[in-house]
Amino acid sequence: MKLLEQRILTEGKVLSGDVLKIDSFLNQQIDVKLLDEIGKELTRLFKDENVTKVLTAESSGIAIACFAALHLGCPAVFARKSKSSNISDNLWTAKAHSYTHGNDYTMIVSKDYIGPEDRVLIVDDFLANGSALTALVSLCRQAGAFVVGAGIAVEKAYQGGSKLPEFEGIRIESMAKIASMDPEKGIIFE
Amino acid sequence: MKLLEQRILTEGKVLSGDVLKIDSFLNQQIDVKLLDEIGKELTRLFKDENVTKVLTAESSGIAIACFAALHLGCPAVFARKSKSSNISDNLWTAKAHSYTHGNDYTMIVSKDYIGPEDRVLIVDDFLANGSALTALVSLCRQAGAFVVGAGIAVEKAYQGGSKLPEFEGIRIESMAKIASMDPEKGIIFE
Repeated sequence: MKLLEQRILTEGKVLSGDVLKIDSFLNQQIDVKLLDEIGKELTRLFKDENVTKVLTAESSGIAIACFAALHLGCPAVFARKSKSSNISDNLWTAKAHSYTHGNDYTMIVSKDYIGPEDRVLIVDDFLANGSALTALVSLCRQAGAFVVGAGIAVEKAYQGGSKLPEFEGIRIESMAKIASMDPEKGIIFE
Repeated sequence: MKLLEQRILTEGKVLSGDVLKIDSFLNQQIDVKLLDEIGKELTRLFKDENVTKVLTAESSGIAIACFAALHLGCPAVFARKSKSSNISDNLWTAKAHSYTHGNDYTMIVSKDYIGPEDRVLIVDDFLANGSALTALVSLCRQAGAFVVGAGIAVEKAYQGGSKLPEFEGIRIESMAKIASMDPEKGIIFE
């Protein structure tokens, strides 16, 4: 998606430690028009899949999920991230690791909102090593829901997260795919 | 807003400890059509105020902020909640207390996204004792931004949060105002 690539090139900051900062339009300030366009593009790609839920993880995925859900005509659901291993009968839980924050956490969603009748489109802001997406897929599989695919805003393709065996058979669509990224040489898209 | 009141009456669960659970359409599953209507109503109320930013707090405020910002034609910004007293030169910070979770936290937003040129509409899912809203107003005042008002989905009016001296001169518009709430007697709106 050229619109997103352009914004990443003009406003993204590549920091050391493999961090891409796009706080000015996605991770803190939200350019709602841009995210609405991402929602429309995800709808174009997945409109024939009879999506019943758009699932994401708090916090930065919520805006993308809302606009995708609006155009797909279904509810959005967000999993919460908990530092404690929160166990309750009515929750699906899956462990994940944040390389950015260097901590483990548990992804949690109520059993009331993802079930065996659901056809789920998972969306997220970033796909890097695939840890968060693995957890979101796990929540759906525990619920017996069918994952129609994953819609990602920015994929760090060079990390190979989308190639994990856990994602076999899952269609992953990334709006911007970064082939390489370096504080000095900048960003190159696939 | 009748549409929201109706949903609260049919799906809201009043739990002990003064908790209103509306996870089925706002706090975990998001009915994006309903929130889009809330965004339109906030736009109708504040459209003459030349709003330049819609500010909220993660996570449940983000969806409301996105739809309000879309219709108002400006960006949304979300403050993060941190358990540590994160101090950095480039952040506005304000302390708040969560009565639901029984903990203190720090509301944080980058100085890059709220500044003296801004006319800010603050939005949030709940207004109860006013602690979160006090922190959001404080972030704006530190930044020298003008707060045009606050748009709240559900106000627990009986807690009197909107009457705090901190909010003097700030127009607060709540889409649903709860006069009383009880696990047995149910919910009564103002």
